Amino acid sequence: MRGLSPAASAAEKHSATAATRQDGKPSGPSAMDRLQALVADDMAAVNACILDRMQSPVALIPQLAGHLVSSGGKRLRPVLTLACAQLIGFEGRRHIKLAACVEFIHTATLLHDDVVDASTLRRGRETANEIWGNQASVLVGDFLFSRAFELMVEDGSLDVLRILSAASSVIAEGEVLQLTTTGDLATDEATYLDVIGAKTAVLFAAACEIAGVVADGDDDTRARLRSFGQALGIAFQIVDDVLDYSARQATLGKTVGDDFQEGKLTLPVIYALAGADAPEKAFWKRCLEDLDQRDGDLEQALSLMGRHDALPRAMDRARDYVRDAHAAIAPFADGPMKQALSDIVDFVIERGH
Amino acid sequence: MRGLSPAASAAEKHSATAATRQDGKPSGPSAMDRLQALVADDMAAVNACILDRMQSPVALIPQLAGHLVSSGGKRLRPVLTLACAQLIGFEGRRHIKLAACVEFIHTATLLHDDVVDASTLRRGRETANEIWGNQASVLVGDFLFSRAFELMVEDGSLDVLRILSAASSVIAEGEVLQLTTTGDLATDEATYLDVIGAKTAVLFAAACEIAGVVADGDDDTRARLRSFGQALGIAFQIVDDVLDYSARQATLGKTVGDDFQEGKLTLPVIYALAGADAPEKAFWKRCLEDLDQRDGDLEQALSLMGRHDALPRAMDRARDYVRDAHAAIAPFADGPMKQALSDIVDFVIERGH
Repeated sequence: MRGLSPAASAAEKHSATAATRQDGKPSGPSAMDRLQALVADDMAAVNACILDRMQSPVALIPQLAGHLVSSGGKRLRPVLTLACAQLIGFEGRRHIKLAACVEFIHTATLLHDDVVDASTLRRGRETANEIWGNQASVLVGDFLFSRAFELMVEDGSLDVLRILSAASSVIAEGEVLQLTTTGDLATDEATYLDVIGAKTAVLFAAACEIAGVVADGDDDTRARLRSFGQALGIAFQIVDDVLDYSARQATLGKTVGDDFQEGKLTLPVIYALAGADAPEKAFWKRCLEDLDQRDGDLEQALSLMGRHDALPRAMDRARDYVRDAHAAIAPFADGPMKQALSDIVDFVIERGH
Repeated sequence: MRGLSPAASAAEKHSATAATRQDGKPSGPSAMDRLQALVADDMAAVNACILDRMQSPVALIPQLAGHLVSSGGKRLRPVLTLACAQLIGFEGRRHIKLAACVEFIHTATLLHDDVVDASTLRRGRETANEIWGNQASVLVGDFLFSRAFELMVEDGSLDVLRILSAASSVIAEGEVLQLTTTGDLATDEATYLDVIGAKTAVLFAAACEIAGVVADGDDDTRARLRSFGQALGIAFQIVDDVLDYSARQATLGKTVGDDFQEGKLTLPVIYALAGADAPEKAFWKRCLEDLDQRDGDLEQALSLMGRHDALPRAMDRARDYVRDAHAAIAPFADGPMKQALSDIVDFVIERGH
């Protein structure tokens, strides 16, 4: 995982593989695979739009952007735009370009995020900042972000522009808030939820809501789609943060402990801290506030989390949002897309086990 | 100067002081002072809007943004929006918010630019990245950029959104192009003009053109305002790049040689290189391509520029754009604002002597 990131990361990477049940038997195509299959034609058009619109006479721009764009991310956010549009019966084409906008904004935040975190790996490949330097990553992020707004202007909906410009502000606020809470042991659950609600969930919410805008949905439809995305995004990020301390994650060859190493106050830490005695508090202070970490500290952190049931409690909290997400789409007409979206919500939780 | 910067820098810093004629006698309030006086009321409203809209519940955001916003920049770009609106007789208030947008976009690019250049000083003060770190500067830049788009959406003009989103893309392209030409001795004048046309002039052009949009100007009016801003911006940046090698600049206690140190291929270097013999070429290669610089190299660079008349030739090139800028506003009705804008064009050149 990459911690500060507005959320590609562990849960998303896993969604590429077929789900494995807790009994260890494969359960067939994952919920993500099924959802992607339902929007495959539209997604091909989105991918074509992304490739087309990330071009520039300045060769380094498509090179650098293409590195990330082609790196096998699951494009969960634009998939949500397409899926929500299908859910409510939209039959036009406007959502293609807007789904590409959502991915451009996400890609821009990933580029900046990897600079902010000084990350060297993303999705198993060297990061753009590692290959081309921080300078180019910052500037190409700015380019993609601007290009997203150009695409929205071409579409011409001020509602969409309002939703995505507000989302972009809030994402940046969430990232800055996370910066200021890093290493701050006084960070509480409410602040943590503010951080992930802003840095991650708001773009999920916007990706879903704009489908309601292009389909000319009424206020209730738009609000439900937005709530669905917001709840899904929060659950997604909580699970992502749990996976950063997950032993199973480690057995799958994924990185564990990045958040720990960076001093991030994620929900598992907050829960472990809430029940900590004085020596435990001193341990967390040394590791996360002072960033004075030694061999065996991560194992000790995992052990303290075990003692305070921190990971299962965080998963329980994620389940609250999963319930909200299910409730938000319940009133929509039953059908394969509603089922697929419902499954993707449950899938977020499955990933945490 | 800060080289990669989208253009605050030397020329702008100087504009704060009263002009000094070549004979050494002060010539009264500078053209910049006179222009600012003509838009003072509107500018007070713009400043209030900037302060109001850079707020956020995340305290670090207004702290960091305020550091740059209050650092005594001359706000040349929003001044141009206000001045052009006045020039064509606009009497509404919409341009206030849009002038603030322009300044937000400029401030965002400065924050990112100082990260890209690893700058430690801007306008004589520590840079935000030096005080709060690169991470916060990147993210607060993203916030201001997003906030600019939120303000444009509130205004509601898709034309303005089109102009400023396109300008933002082009600025990023220009900055990336400059990155790729840094240290590349094959960079020619046309490429240099592409870089500064994009990284600097496009925002000047957009700042002027949007005044034409809010005032409901016809196509010709908009095109003239845009051409005026574009030509002024190019002249401004050429002079800025000359000042980075200017001895007079050094006697004024300003930094000289930043571009040299960073290996930037600015117009004075391009002109010095065009006439260089083999040992001179080897010198430029060592200094700018290999970045192997020693004591006395900057003096040697200045001496080679003197030998090839590089600085006066660059100033002549700036004068071509000054003529274009004058021509662009010539058809507008005479009056104090047209005079002030005309004077500001000449002032750009005066700064270079």
